[in-house]
Formats: sequence, C-alpha cells, structure tokens
Amino acid sequence: MSERFDAVDVIRTKRDKQALSDEQIDWVVDAYTREVVADEQMAALAMAILLNGMTREEISRWTNAMIASGERMDFSSLSRPTADKHSTGGVGDKITLPLAPLVAACGVAVPQLSGRGLGHTGGTLDKLEAIPGWQASLSNEAMLDQLEEIGAVICAAGSGLAPADKRLYALRDVTGTVEAIPLIASSIMSKKIAEGTGALVLDVKVGSGAFMKDVENARELASTMVQLGKDAGVTTVALLTDMSTPLGLTAGNGLEVQESVEVLAGGGPSDVVELTVELAREMLKAAGKDDVDPADALKDGRAMDVWRTMIAAQGGDPDAELPTAKEAQVIEADADGVVTELDALAVGVAAWRLGAGRARKEDKVQAAAGVQMHAKPGDRVRKGDPLLTLHTDTPEKFERAAEALEGKWAIGESADDRPDLIIDRIS
Amino acid sequence: MSERFDAVDVIRTKRDKQALSDEQIDWVVDAYTREVVADEQMAALAMAILLNGMTREEISRWTNAMIASGERMDFSSLSRPTADKHSTGGVGDKITLPLAPLVAACGVAVPQLSGRGLGHTGGTLDKLEAIPGWQASLSNEAMLDQLEEIGAVICAAGSGLAPADKRLYALRDVTGTVEAIPLIASSIMSKKIAEGTGALVLDVKVGSGAFMKDVENARELASTMVQLGKDAGVTTVALLTDMSTPLGLTAGNGLEVQESVEVLAGGGPSDVVELTVELAREMLKAAGKDDVDPADALKDGRAMDVWRTMIAAQGGDPDAELPTAKEAQVIEADADGVVTELDALAVGVAAWRLGAGRARKEDKVQAAAGVQMHAKPGDRVRKGDPLLTLHTDTPEKFERAAEALEGKWAIGESADDRPDLIIDRIS
Repeated sequence: MSERFDAVDVIRTKRDKQALSDEQIDWVVDAYTREVVADEQMAALAMAILLNGMTREEISRWTNAMIASGERMDFSSLSRPTADKHSTGGVGDKITLPLAPLVAACGVAVPQLSGRGLGHTGGTLDKLEAIPGWQASLSNEAMLDQLEEIGAVICAAGSGLAPADKRLYALRDVTGTVEAIPLIASSIMSKKIAEGTGALVLDVKVGSGAFMKDVENARELASTMVQLGKDAGVTTVALLTDMSTPLGLTAGNGLEVQESVEVLAGGGPSDVVELTVELAREMLKAAGKDDVDPADALKDGRAMDVWRTMIAAQGGDPDAELPTAKEAQVIEADADGVVTELDALAVGVAAWRLGAGRARKEDKVQAAAGVQMHAKPGDRVRKGDPLLTLHTDTPEKFERAAEALEGKWAIGESADDRPDLIIDRIS
Repeated sequence: MSERFDAVDVIRTKRDKQALSDEQIDWVVDAYTREVVADEQMAALAMAILLNGMTREEISRWTNAMIASGERMDFSSLSRPTADKHSTGGVGDKITLPLAPLVAACGVAVPQLSGRGLGHTGGTLDKLEAIPGWQASLSNEAMLDQLEEIGAVICAAGSGLAPADKRLYALRDVTGTVEAIPLIASSIMSKKIAEGTGALVLDVKVGSGAFMKDVENARELASTMVQLGKDAGVTTVALLTDMSTPLGLTAGNGLEVQESVEVLAGGGPSDVVELTVELAREMLKAAGKDDVDPADALKDGRAMDVWRTMIAAQGGDPDAELPTAKEAQVIEADADGVVTELDALAVGVAAWRLGAGRARKEDKVQAAAGVQMHAKPGDRVRKGDPLLTLHTDTPEKFERAAEALEGKWAIGESADDRPDLIIDRIS
C-alpha cells in the first residue's frame, strides 16, 4: 500500500513534456510488472512517451528497469565468445537461418532466442517449425550444452527474460503505441542484454515492408539501440538495410527454409547471400574474430554441417522433405520489360493472408503457405512469364492475397538502379 | 464480431494528428460503452486527444455520441421554461443552493442534477446531505412532479444519462487525462444536453482553486461548451469567474448550507450574493424572462420560501440544527494589516483533509468538517485576530490540514485590488 509514486503523477510528468526521474522509471516498470500500475495507466503513459519522446538517459534507465524485471542469462562459462543478431523484421527475412550456423562455423557461438510472427512479417520459429520434428523449446541447460557443442542455437525465448517487456509489448500492440522509438529500442535491447550475449549486430530494416518506413527514423532507432548496447557493455553495431522489396525469392515458412538451405549449399539469391555474409562479418568482428572470412565457411560446406547438426539436435530431420501446399496460383507478367517494383509490404500481406502468418497470437500458421517470386526489381521478364506463385492449403484465400498484390508490382522499359541493400552502418 | 472499425486504427488516426471521422467517433464511443473497446485502448486515445486536440466538429460529434449512449430526459411537459447552471467546480462554491430556489421563485424551473465531490472541491449533494433527513435520490417522475409544483429540484443524476461519460470519466481520473479540454467540454455538455434543460448557464472557474488555472484555457473551455450547447439547441451562456480565493467565508458541507441560508435570508457574504444574483439573471434571460429582477425575490423572502419547500419535499427539515464539529482549531493573524492573499486551493485541500471531502469515491464525508474564514483578501485584521477556524470530528487531522494552509495566506500593508469576481461573459 505504501507505493513510492502515484501512477497518475508519473503519467502527468511525461504528458507535460518533462523527463521522468530514474526513480519514477524504476517504480513504474516494476509496479506495472506487479500489476499495481494498471494496463490503462501504462497505455496512457505509452502514448505520452510516443508523442512527447524520451531522452537517451530515460531510455537507458527504462531498458535497465525492464531487464531488472526478470532473470539474466550468462554465457561466460562457454569456451568461445558469443554474438547475436536481431532484425527489426521484414518480408522474406530468413537471414537468421543460414547466419547462425555460418557464424558458429567460424568459431563464435550464436544464442539466437527468437519469437513467432505477428502480422505481415514472419517469425523465425514459425519458419523452422516447417521442418518435420523440429522443436523450438529448450531448457536453459540444453541451450547452453548445444551452444558449447554445436555453437549455434535458435530457440524460443523463455518467459523469464524481461517479463515487463512481454506485458508491455502486448499492450502496445492493441493501443496504437508500437511505433514509439524509445519503447521499440528498450523492448529489443532489454531482451538482448538480459540474454547475455557478448556482442550484438542489429539489422534495422527500412522501407515499405519494414516497421520503419524512412531512413531518418531507422537511423534514430539504430543509434538509440547501439548506445543502449554500449551502455550495458555489449559490443553493438547496426546495419540499416533495404526492405522496399522482399529479401530473396520467397516469403513463407517452408519456402524460406528451402531458400536458406540453398544458400547454405552455396547457391540461393544474391541478396540473401550478401546480407548473410555481411552480417556474419559484423558479428565475427564484434566478437573479436576479424581474421576469419565467413564467405569461406559458406563455400566449403562448414556452415551447412553446423546447420544439419543444429537442426538434428532439436529433433528436426535435415533430410526430410519440406511440406508443399495443396494449391498454387500463378500471377503472370502482363508485358515484356523489366520489373521496376515489387512492394515488400504487399508480398508480406499476401503471404500472411495465404496462411503463412497470424492475425492473433493464438492462430496457427501453415508451413507451406506463402509467395514465391520468380523475378525481382531489375529482372527482365516477358509477357506471360510467371511473376509470382501463391501457395496455400486453403484456396479460398487466393482472392484476398491477390488483392494485396494488385498495383504493387510494375513492369517498365528499364528499372531504376536498385537501392543499395546495405544503406548505412552505425557503431 | 463484424465491427465497423478497429480500435487501433482509430487511436492511430488521432495519434498521427488527423481528425477522427464522424463514423469513427460514433463507433468508438458506442464500442467503448459495449466494452468492445477496452479501457487501455480508450486511455491511449484519451492521451492522444489531450496532446493532439480535437476540432470543434470532432468535439460536437463526440458529445452527441456520448448523449446517444444513454437516455434523454424531456421537460417539455412542464408549464414553465427550464434553466440549469453548471459550475466547473471551486472552493466554497455553494452557489447552487441559493440559486436554484431563487430562479424558481422568479418563474423558471431549475432541474439541477448534481454529483458528489472528489478531491478538494465539494459536491452539491454532499452539502445538502448535511441537512437532517434530506435525500438525494429521486425517481424521474418525482423529479418532474417537484419541478412542476415547486419549480426547483437538486438531486442525484441518474445513471441513465450519458453512461459512456461515466465510464470515460472514471478512466480519465486514473490515467492523467482529465485535463483535455475536448473531453471536459463533451463530458459536461453531454450530461446537460441529455438532461433536457432548455437553457444553460455555465460558471467556468479560473484560478488556483479551480480546474482551469489560467484565463486562456478557461475561455477556450467556455467557448467550446457554449458552442456545443447552441449546436444542440440549448441557449447557453458562460461566465468566467474568479477562483483564486474561496467563494464566501466557508468551505465544508454543513458550513456552506449555513452560509447559503444566510444569503437566502438577505444576508451572507457579498461575493456569494453577487454571483448568485448574476447567475440567476443570466438563467432568467436565457429562459426568456428578462423582465424579472432576481434581487427582489431574494430580498422579499420568496427565494427562501422555495428553499424551505424544496428541502422539505426531499425529506429534509429546513428548521433542523445543522451538525457541528466536535473539535475546532483557530489560526490567528500574525500581524496587523490587510489580508493580501488567501489561496483557494489551500483552503480546499485543508477542508478536504479535515473530512469535508473524499479521496476515493467510496469514502464518507463529515457533514460538519471544514474551514471557516474570518477575513478575506482586502479585509483589515489585527495581530491575534482569528483568521481561519478549522472544524473536524477527527482532531488528528488538524495537523495536515494546517500544513496545507502554511504560506498560503498573507498579511501586508495594503491589498492589491481584488480581481473582479466576474472576469468575462461568453455567449
């Protein structure tokens, strides 16, 4: 009953454009976790933070308060350094799948605690669950053992890390307060810092299919997160990467696993290969392994070996056939020319509507649903060529998926230069 | 399940500084009443409204949506016109008590649906409940009968009027969103319009003891409400009145009834008399009775006659002694001179702490607790004269009540001119 602060006073402080004190932040995050601060109070505070902002000091304190709401993991007993990667989410972003085994193959352990997808961006766990037998849940001990023995683990984040964030994220999702940079940055970084990684590389997506639509906001988010990482003693680097068009040629769970295996086998779409190698390079550098070139480990099959061991260690069969969808529908090029546009958001929404994603947390996803792209911006096509193939087990979904794509791709005489895949690097 | 809108889209619209459409407003108010829109969603929307504002059109539509959430009353069967008064709340504001019978005595019916107090401003019903036997609750029929026969009724507002406002007000109270002018204006006006009064006079208080601390905000609130009244066909006028120092010489339930009876008997403090007569004049004019001077009805005892009948009709004994507090404590003038300041908020908080008000809705109030003022700004005092008397049944409360007053009154050589009681008139 003797709370140090009153929730309304804390809300008013931010509402009236003042900085919250350290004590106010510690209290409000802790009291929200204890359910003393109610959801409607935190919702009002989140909206005030979104509209009035936070100073770097406030964001740092808020992040620490979220970390303090739960347990911290510790990888210092491992025989090798650790590095993790976090992507802010995009369409066709399967990079984690080839990246984790690639970095592990180069001698740095990758503890990749991942989530499921919501909305038009897929979740890494949803993708891997397309592999027959693969299990996302591991105990902390099993995770540590796998990290030591195999060097890479992709598994579900336990509920013990930053529980305040878990509750706050669910609240922001229903109250129009997801888009607050201070809250995005502290949400991501509290989990990554609590997870205990030694180094962290952030892939901040920019463009229609990303959360951040413009470079300025993405740069602010990236530099905020890099600073939070450094404040916590984690070597942190961010790349700003293009998400105006999907990554690779697939969006959908099983389809993306397939493409990832192609990359690990030395093939795959050039953008996926480029970003995987570049992120691997950053992770190795951040972990103090500048001397290793990840491109070699991709070429000579070492990354593929780690992938197979990693999948098998979590019950998956790396040789099993991936499920295929019951129905497919092709969208054809309507003219001769060059693809000038293929909108990332539209592809993401189409894949989602086909069954690859979920609208609510409790929804199930289809392993084989999604969109296959036969041409990307810059590619030459002829009238009647297949441009996109839609896959689903539930053909009644074709219509709304195709609707999402209408007017969202274009064929012209010649394509503008494709934007650079890697837009900026912030460290 | 097939809702016309998604709450998050509505919140985002206001968050991104757009005007809400008529359909969005109708939906969100209705859906909140149906509990389809959750408290945390409405809290985020309320904060966005507070920080980003609303156009006049949005406020008008919002008000109508709140009216549509409940029942509307109808006084058109009465043989005389109706006029109501609403005060935004101040310290020592007992004006409704002499005003309702005074206006009734002049031939205009006054349906005064009132509330209880929360915080440092008292509630009209709490004051009248200091009269032994008096009952606040009346059925709609009993209210109409009393209006027709006696011409004045002060009773509890039924829960059927603007139920959306009831829920929203409770939410705003705990989420730091009370201070949004669009929400204040629509809250007040939705209830007054639904109540069915033909004319309405608003007493918008300005100063330390009021909700609005500065004239500019008060003027904006007043003109917003006047426009809402006119849009709804209710003749509406607003007075901006001073609340830097309390009204009259008493703050507390029974103490204020006593003072009101003095006014009805032809005496009482000059500020209370002035404001009562001025508001009565405005109400009569708004109801089309320009020809009657309320000052006469106060002098010749007609207002007192209506008071006595009105109190008796609701079970009260107009001749009963009012309760007196068990304990009293006097604060004396510390110098010879003129009172230069007596802060309204400090007196309100002191009265509240003595037991006259409540901190939570479920608290009980003391009928006899409060603050009696022996001198007001401009009055000459001598060192040792009683300046304030604190009354309570619970003497352990004296200390914190006296604390609230420390440094909040001053005696100087001469007082500045007192601010005008009536600052502005908006119609």
